[in-house]
Formats: sequence, C-alpha cells, structure tokens
Amino acid sequence: MIYASVEAVERALREIGEVDADAVGAARLRQDSLTKPKGSLGRLEELALFMAGWQGRPIPTIENAKMVVFAGNHGVAARGVSAFPATVTAQMVANFQTGGAAINALARTAGLALEIVAIDLDRPTADFTESAALSVDDCLEALSIGARTVSEDLDLIALGEMGIGNSTAAAALAACSFGGSAALWTGPGTGVGDAGMARKIAVVEAGLTQHRDAPCTAFETLRRLGGREIVAMAGAVLRARQWRVPVLLDGYICCAAIAPLARDNPAITAHCLAGHRSAEPGHIRLLDQLGLRPLLDLDMRLGEGSGAALAAMLVRAALEVHAGMASFAEAGVANRV
Amino acid sequence: MIYASVEAVERALREIGEVDADAVGAARLRQDSLTKPKGSLGRLEELALFMAGWQGRPIPTIENAKMVVFAGNHGVAARGVSAFPATVTAQMVANFQTGGAAINALARTAGLALEIVAIDLDRPTADFTESAALSVDDCLEALSIGARTVSEDLDLIALGEMGIGNSTAAAALAACSFGGSAALWTGPGTGVGDAGMARKIAVVEAGLTQHRDAPCTAFETLRRLGGREIVAMAGAVLRARQWRVPVLLDGYICCAAIAPLARDNPAITAHCLAGHRSAEPGHIRLLDQLGLRPLLDLDMRLGEGSGAALAAMLVRAALEVHAGMASFAEAGVANRV
Repeated sequence: MIYASVEAVERALREIGEVDADAVGAARLRQDSLTKPKGSLGRLEELALFMAGWQGRPIPTIENAKMVVFAGNHGVAARGVSAFPATVTAQMVANFQTGGAAINALARTAGLALEIVAIDLDRPTADFTESAALSVDDCLEALSIGARTVSEDLDLIALGEMGIGNSTAAAALAACSFGGSAALWTGPGTGVGDAGMARKIAVVEAGLTQHRDAPCTAFETLRRLGGREIVAMAGAVLRARQWRVPVLLDGYICCAAIAPLARDNPAITAHCLAGHRSAEPGHIRLLDQLGLRPLLDLDMRLGEGSGAALAAMLVRAALEVHAGMASFAEAGVANRV
Repeated sequence: MIYASVEAVERALREIGEVDADAVGAARLRQDSLTKPKGSLGRLEELALFMAGWQGRPIPTIENAKMVVFAGNHGVAARGVSAFPATVTAQMVANFQTGGAAINALARTAGLALEIVAIDLDRPTADFTESAALSVDDCLEALSIGARTVSEDLDLIALGEMGIGNSTAAAALAACSFGGSAALWTGPGTGVGDAGMARKIAVVEAGLTQHRDAPCTAFETLRRLGGREIVAMAGAVLRARQWRVPVLLDGYICCAAIAPLARDNPAITAHCLAGHRSAEPGHIRLLDQLGLRPLLDLDMRLGEGSGAALAAMLVRAALEVHAGMASFAEAGVANRV
C-alpha cells in the first residue's frame, strides 16, 4: 500500500510539493508577449500559468490526461437519505463500463481517458451514525487505491465519484472540517424531497454527535465520516501533490473529500482547480473554505466528474492559446498607442 | 444584396421564425429518460433542448459549424478612445489569416471552421459625433455581407469581431437602444486609462447628442452609431433567424450589435445564446436587456469571438451527452426509490 500507516498519510499532507515559480514566471512573460491586450483572456491566462507551474515548464500540454471515477457504497444509504436505492451505485458502474453514462460522453468530448475504480461495492461502509464508517486499514487501503491512479507522467488528472448516499457523507465531512450546522451543509443531492431532506439533516447531525470526541485530524475525519470513493479521492489529491500533477476537482462530494486535508494544511489545494460550482447549496461555501474559485457555473448536480470534464475543455483551450498564439513581434502587430 | 432596402430589413426583423416546439418536446422526453437524476445536468440539458428546437430535430448535432469574425474600422478611433492605434485592425486581420491570434487556437479547439470577413478596412466609418457612421447603402451592404455568411445548412454559427474603436460604438448603440447615460455603458475596452475613459465617455455622449433627433429604429441606430463589422453581425443574426440557425454571441460589442434589433423586436434573441459574460462592465446589463444568460464568466475581454468559441465547446458537450447517453431502461438502472 502506498499509504501503509497513518503516519505516512500525515507526512504526505505535511511535506507537500511547491509550484515551480520559474515556470510560472516564464509562462507569464510569454502570455504578455502574445497578440492580445495584456490580461484580456482573464482566467484562460491564469490557467496557462497554473498548468505551467505544476507541470514545471513554460509551455504546458495536455496529452496524457485522465478522468478517474471512484465508486463506493455507504451504510447510511439504508436510512432513506437518497432519492435512489443503493443498488444504483453498482448499476451505474456497469453503465460507466458500457459507455452509457454522462461521464462517458463528457470525458470523450474533453479528450480524457476514463478510468472507473469501483471499491468493494458489496461492502458498504458502516453507518457513521453508529460507528466509524471505515476501519483504519480499510481507510489506508482506500487512500492507497486513490493514490495508485496517479502516475508521475500525467499532465492532468480529473476526479469524479458515484455512491448512493455520498452527499450525506460529504455534508458530514464539510461540517466536521469547517464547522457550521448539519442543515447548513446538507443539500438535496440527487433530489430528495422535504421529508428526505429532514432525514438527511438528522443523519448528518447524528454522525457529528457520534464522533464529536474523535481526534480532529484529516485521517480520522475521513475514516469516521467518509466512504471508500471519497477517501480514494483524498488519496489521489495527496499523491498528485507529491508528483506535482495538476488536479481538476468536480462538485460537492469531491470537494468534501479534501476538506479534512485542507483543514489540516490549507496549502493542499494549491495544485487543484475547481471545475465548477454545483447546484448543491453548500458547494460554494465549501469552495470558499478551500480557497478555490470555480471555472463553470451551469446548475449541474450530477457528480461522476461531469463538471470537471467540462472544465478540462477550458484548460485545454487555455493551453492551445498559450502554445499556439503569435507574439506581437512575430505577427507584426503594434502593441498599444 | 440580401437586404436591398430598409423595408427588407424591417420585414426580416418583424417576420421571424419560431422555435420547433415539437422537437423541443421530444428532446425533453429523451433527456428525462437518460441515466441521471432529472435536471441534474442543468444548463447542458437546456442547451440540448435549445439546439433541438432551432435545428428542428430531437437529436441535434454540430457537424457543420463556423465562427465568423467580422472586422471594420471606425472614424471615432481618431479621437483617442482606444489603447491601440487603428492600424491594428488590419494587422490583426493578417494575424487571423496566418493563424496567430487567440481565435485561431480557440476555433480549432472548439471544432469550428473560421471565416474572416474584413469589410473595407481602408474606408473607416464617419466619426459618429459629426454625422452618421454609414450611408444607407453602406449600411445595407454591411447587413447583407453579414447575412451572406449564414447558410441554411449550418448547425451553429458563432460571431466575433475586430475593430479598433468599436467598444465606443457599442456603448453608443447600447445607450441609444436601452437608455442610460454614456458613462453607464462605457468601459475600458482593450484597456484605456483614466484619461482615455473620459475621452471615450465624452465621445459617446457627443454621438448620442448628435443623433438624438434621428428616427429611433434598428436600422437608423445601426447606421448612425454602428460600424461595418457591427452591422454585419446584426445582418447575420437576422438571416440566421430566417433559417432557424442557432447563433452563439460573443461579448459586449457582439451583443451591442443586436441591441437595436432587440429594442424593435425583443423576440429576435430567441435563437441566440450568450457565450460568456465579458469583463466589460456594461456587458451584464446588456445581457439582461437582451434576456440572455451567459454560459461562461471567465473575466475575458478580448473579443474576436473568443468567448463564443469556448461556449461552443459546452454546446458540443451538451449534444454529445444528449445523443450518447443510455436511458434507464437501456442500462437497467433503477429510477428513484
């Protein structure tokens, strides 16, 4: 296992890689020489600099990039917190594998390889209102499974998830990491009605109460309130940082997976981009806490990595502009009056 | 000429095509059958329905799509309203033609053919603070040039522009169409400083005063305050509506080109999508007046069709999802509890 002990996880979160400031500086000089008013491409320019910094080269590229969708099942799903039955997790994984889901179409359009990692779907986590969702070993294993999807040669990794009940776990993780009531962080997820929302809030509250005396560390928070697919996303983010691989995050659940990491070390989000702001009400608050500004805001609330896949298209466009444009000197264009 | 008389223009703006409600209904049924919680893809679902309605088929496609960038020169550029000299219009057109500009990279990434239409660059419009920018014949010709870029078989047309001084014309068009002071509608454009902004506002004010007694019609407003590339965009939007070709608008100047049309007939924007909200301060107000909600908000202020090209990627992704996903029945996924 990549993370064989809790200490190994804590070390990975403490000793994190830094952006390559020289590459950022060189990329900025290049941007400012291109045939457009300085700064006029706004966030596309920022994206080029971000990618340069984490790839460590003035002209970054996206050739070897993938979307990894992790799936897991949740004990709390039995408590009526979702509009869909827990069997849908495995059914949707089958749908991913035969190419019929939204993320198949979106990853293909964005030019991302798609990797599906279903983790022990026949072993849901324990109900976190009664005990920790995962044992220490299971949590280390899920972190390591996530970490193993990251290779040093990736230009970009995008993360997504599937797991009936996981927006309930996400709300608990966000509340435990950043404070605030269960109601503040709980949203409709796939679309529960009013009664479902009330149950969901009560479940999040019960989970927070159950674990209120637990050590407030990233590992313990993930282990007690998370789920296998959630913990795997945290493991992927940690490992990506070690190798300075840029990460594209998806929506509420994906961001909640790194909330416990960010509480312990806020700098952990520096190699991450927020693909979009989802329609889940707590997401924008969570993004604020993580110091991330979303690239898209399209009222989406699907998960699966759908928002991250769309955002990957913007990152790709930003790099095409950065690499492909002529400078004022090359094009013979006058630069300002 | 497609628009041989002012009457022909007025007729085209009065007798406009309607969306195909049957195709929209069929597309909605299809969306609701796909393996995702209903509505969970937000604006991607809206885009699929929009495209279905204007293409008149339940499963719309983007195969034959193009970006047209119109260029023109402006008499008011001599009044110090831009950060760049007027010679840059022709230099940037050459840059488009040799492939070195941002729009070349963005159109290529979005899979749009790129067509550059430079209109009489050696004949700037008249200074609109002194007289009408264009004669009746020149305005009809520019409308017709724009209209000629639209063919009935297009799946989508995206519009962009280049013209030093044209954000000054755009501010005048917006103010004349929707009211409000010159200062309310004037922004930094390519990036003028404080002194330039003061000059720009004064020029817009002088233009509004000069033409305050003119007939308040779309044609007269475009002719007096517009420019060739601006009028051509209006012509393209009119012609696209006749053939129900969906249009992707770019930023402030592109939207200002249809402001006079929308004042006379607000329904003219129904076949148009707003690609993005630009950083030009008046753009969001203009979008509100046009009844359009932008797809992207990336602090961009370049023009050239750059925001529309990026948004075309989202439209393409929306159609890939719409056409490519499996239904609940096909995938054997349970639909809700």
